[in-house]
Amino acid sequence: MKIKIFTTGGTIDKMYFDQKSEYQVGDPQAKGVLEKANVVVDYEVESILKKDSLDLTDLDRELIRNKVESTPFDRVIVTHGTDTMIKTARELESVSGKTIVMTGSMYPAQFKESDAVFNIGSAVTSVQILKPGVYIAMNGRIFTPRNVRKNVELNRFEEIVI
Amino acid sequence: MKIKIFTTGGTIDKMYFDQKSEYQVGDPQAKGVLEKANVVVDYEVESILKKDSLDLTDLDRELIRNKVESTPFDRVIVTHGTDTMIKTARELESVSGKTIVMTGSMYPAQFKESDAVFNIGSAVTSVQILKPGVYIAMNGRIFTPRNVRKNVELNRFEEIVI
Amino acid sequence: MKIKIFTTGGTIDKMYFDQKSEYQVGDPQAKGVLEKANVVVDYEVESILKKDSLDLTDLDRELIRNKVESTPFDRVIVTHGTDTMIKTARELESVSGKTIVMTGSMYPAQFKESDAVFNIGSAVTSVQILKPGVYIAMNGRIFTPRNVRKNVELNRFEEIVI
Amino acid sequence: MKIKIFTTGGTIDKMYFDQKSEYQVGDPQAKGVLEKANVVVDYEVESILKKDSLDLTDLDRELIRNKVESTPFDRVIVTHGTDTMIKTARELESVSGKTIVMTGSMYPAQFKESDAVFNIGSAVTSVQILKPGVYIAMNGRIFTPRNVRKNVELNRFEEIVI
Repeated sequence: MKIKIFTTGGTIDKMYFDQKSEYQVGDPQAKGVLEKANVVVDYEVESILKKDSLDLTDLDRELIRNKVESTPFDRVIVTHGTDTMIKTARELESVSGKTIVMTGSMYPAQFKESDAVFNIGSAVTSVQILKPGVYIAMNGRIFTPRNVRKNVELNRFEEIVI
Repeated sequence: MKIKIFTTGGTIDKMYFDQKSEYQVGDPQAKGVLEKANVVVDYEVESILKKDSLDLTDLDRELIRNKVESTPFDRVIVTHGTDTMIKTARELESVSGKTIVMTGSMYPAQFKESDAVFNIGSAVTSVQILKPGVYIAMNGRIFTPRNVRKNVELNRFEEIVI
Repeated sequence: MKIKIFTTGGTIDKMYFDQKSEYQVGDPQAKGVLEKANVVVDYEVESILKKDSLDLTDLDRELIRNKVESTPFDRVIVTHGTDTMIKTARELESVSGKTIVMTGSMYPAQFKESDAVFNIGSAVTSVQILKPGVYIAMNGRIFTPRNVRKNVELNRFEEIVI
Repeated sequence: MKIKIFTTGGTIDKMYFDQKSEYQVGDPQAKGVLEKANVVVDYEVESILKKDSLDLTDLDRELIRNKVESTPFDRVIVTHGTDTMIKTARELESVSGKTIVMTGSMYPAQFKESDAVFNIGSAVTSVQILKPGVYIAMNGRIFTPRNVRKNVELNRFEEIVI
């Protein structure tokens, strides 16, 4: 079993550049996290976008969807900004026959206190055991794209209670 | 769904005490990890042992087994030293009707570069989605107690290839 | 001997706010750094500004100068953004009879890999042993306001070679 | 000005080896710390011993003294275990014409919360500005070998109050 990891940017990959006094999306952090965790699963990481998820266009989502659909691997992780992760997850529901887990983080992976490593641990493990479908692994839970919302005030993903 | 987390010591909880120039098992690290990850799952952490797993006796394993069996929750995580984690996992196979995930780490959670946060992320997520049974969540994989060994040289858990 | 620490913002105090997808100056980091280092010197930290140093006005510099001049303590540290640290240092040259050490960092103190702790270690130690005057403690060196420049490309402070 | 850094082991360089379930003195941490701080001073690091300072013999102290005396550089840092740092400092008092700063840490440099980076920042800066003599840079203070003790209970270096 091999896991394909597509990175698209978002907070998880944000770096800080003192020269410009600003943050920007940097290189994918997922690879470093997996190396430090010394994982014994096969995986490959491919950076397809480096964007804040608020800046993702319909074309960007089309690109993500095409990449996920056309990869020969049926276990796919997509790292993504949190603001529109749910929107992209719903787009991916039209891909069939693959287990797709989206994740990201509320704090950049480069921070001392970040949820990035925990969330990637969640995603890497759950993508191997969940049946085909689209899932969001955030805040220690596995959500489906229709039962989740980002609670901006509490800065976390939560189940939608109906 | 509520997750019960029993901590038993091991490398994951090792602290360093300069006063004595030595390491010792300290307070459970799992709680701090879950707070920093801002998880939205219910859980409670109970420290039942603070031992290097090489020092665990048959009585200690009996205690762990009894605690896991008698807890009213059917989703249970046991953090444990890596050297005899597999032995304890096999003991726990006689508990029925519960999903039990064991985890730990190769480097203390207090280290800058530790696999502890990743592994706890794996355990917390997988314990919610696996069917009843005993599992080991280490190095990005979910193992069963009969198909895993600790590769001491490479410092990781691996599948037994028959 | 007591050390007065004024914080004015800058990269060292930058936090990341996922809710707004941006970095902003947060609470002063110096206090946490000193507590973790378990220092045995008396000090007090006072936040007087929370600004990127590119945004500091003449009035802000006047405020910093007045605060430094009027504090009863003659050992003073000023944490400050790096872009205009040298400009503020030159303003402070008119304060007499005090040892004033400015410092800051190229990466936020909240980052895993930040120069903040090292630089505060430099500043706290040197402010106790330098004779009255204004100094900049950055990149492992003690500079005076007239012999230093920020090398933006190499992201470090350097001696001006004449 | 060039700084010579001799490393001798001690807590600052302690690593954790899961294979043996123990801590041992590992490679010198000072070099990594200086690289991350992006220092603009010339320095070279030489590992001469890798020992817990409680295990240092008279011969080991003779070796340290000879190394410090014979190095052509007159700015010298010695990283050292905390338990007998003061004893070695007193041995070094017989070296003349050099500024010698000893430092170390109460927690291994590999820990998330360690005083190692702060202390090395202290040492690197103070060694450049102190006049010839032997000093101990610990807990944010510069001590001389005759006015300091290690308070084992509070886990810190303190001035001897007479």
